[in-house]
Amino acid sequence: MKIYDRPGFPNPARIRIVLAAKGLDHAVQFESVDLIGAEHKGAAFLAKNPSGVLPLLELDDGTLIAESTAITEYLDNLDGNPILTGKTPKEKGLIHMMQRRAESELLDAVGIYFHHATPGLGEALQQFKSPGWAHRKEWGERERDKAIRGMHYFDDVLRSQPFIAGENFSMADITVFAGLAFADAAGIPIDEELTALRQWRVKVSELPAVKQRSGQNFEADDLRRMGF
Amino acid sequence: MKIYDRPGFPNPARIRIVLAAKGLDHAVQFESVDLIGAEHKGAAFLAKNPSGVLPLLELDDGTLIAESTAITEYLDNLDGNPILTGKTPKEKGLIHMMQRRAESELLDAVGIYFHHATPGLGEALQQFKSPGWAHRKEWGERERDKAIRGMHYFDDVLRSQPFIAGENFSMADITVFAGLAFADAAGIPIDEELTALRQWRVKVSELPAVKQRSGQNFEADDLRRMGF
Ligand SMILES: N[C@@H](CCC(=O)N[C@@H](CS)C(=O)NCC(=O)O)C(=O)O
Ligand SMILES: N[C@@H](CCC(=O)N[C@@H](CS)C(=O)NCC(=O)O)C(=O)O
Repeated sequence: MKIYDRPGFPNPARIRIVLAAKGLDHAVQFESVDLIGAEHKGAAFLAKNPSGVLPLLELDDGTLIAESTAITEYLDNLDGNPILTGKTPKEKGLIHMMQRRAESELLDAVGIYFHHATPGLGEALQQFKSPGWAHRKEWGERERDKAIRGMHYFDDVLRSQPFIAGENFSMADITVFAGLAFADAAGIPIDEELTALRQWRVKVSELPAVKQRSGQNFEADDLRRMGF
Repeated sequence: MKIYDRPGFPNPARIRIVLAAKGLDHAVQFESVDLIGAEHKGAAFLAKNPSGVLPLLELDDGTLIAESTAITEYLDNLDGNPILTGKTPKEKGLIHMMQRRAESELLDAVGIYFHHATPGLGEALQQFKSPGWAHRKEWGERERDKAIRGMHYFDDVLRSQPFIAGENFSMADITVFAGLAFADAAGIPIDEELTALRQWRVKVSELPAVKQRSGQNFEADDLRRMGF
């Protein structure tokens, strides 16, 4: 199977962590897509993923699976031992609830801020991001504020349980972790008082799958190095 | 178990269809929440679901599961026969991909239009919807346009396969179906030329689980009857 992605970016990083957690690093071939040059908005890539975003999984039979949650469901269930998406109905329910919140209240909100209220990935891509909309910046800033409220929410959650969806590490932790990394890159500070969130972040960053994932570390530096 | 919802509303309708498809109608107790009176934005409900939306599932042990996708994962896996969320890794991946698209490209986009660019559910709730933001209407209208593009996308998908995620009916069909019903209620027309989508809609509306689900039918009339 093949993963279209770009190392160092937050959503691709989610799947790199999943692959490491599942021991599947070597079962996939990575194909890098030029996000800075807006290759993902060209006809060739849009034919594969009409949403025009990374990552994207292509199976050997040609099946295309986009959306990090969906890719994670696929990869995590391959060996019949779903350690990231839940084994019991209750685990599945709680993990999917927190996964959805991690996206809408944090990761995706940071993404909207980054792409619409800042220079984002630069000129080539900006023409695809609410072009000509006078209030894009204000919208982005509202989403930044939402992301900050999201951080407070997850801090609260982590005051009563060790991981985002309960007792065990799951895909929801990966999504919040990627969300915080994206927040760093986008210049959204994590409030000092969010000590439960900060401690959890250190703990997660030391997990083998997170530490040893292939590709660059996801740090603010990556985005800067890529030219903006 | 208990479901907090409001019959006739799109996200609650998703779970009513799931319950009917799984033969679980009689295993749940419904508790109606007054969306028009903004009961879901009060402290009592927010303590149960900090996102302040319906539906919400409460298990007998007190566990709370919000988010329709998460509730569906729980209910569909209870009997070990997941007919709506996928049995194989590939089915799970494709269904979750389309589920995510059905939400972001259609159902949630309609919701933003409805709550931010129209009078929505009325005065009591409007104070919780981007209050004081001068450009809320323009934002809502952009999301309406996104929903219309979403309809075109799903029409395209249905030109080459019978259901949204492939050969079988799944939770992604339920979400698109609820999205179209919400579009009706919000006054967003479904273009005449979207014949594959229209035919699929008739076919889905005739499925037993969709026809026989408990609660009111979800039609534009429901929302009007509720007072706006
Ligand atoms: N909902 C998608 C989000 C994917 C996404 O936004 N990916 C980013 C990379 S981190 C992207 O491709 N951005 C390019 C763009 O928005 O144009 C997922 O879960 O995979
Ligand atoms: N992502 C949520 C969306 C739930 C949602 O938006 N529900 C609507 C009812 S259709 C609601 O509670 N709206 C009230 C509000 O937005 O204040 C899900 O999948 O359940």
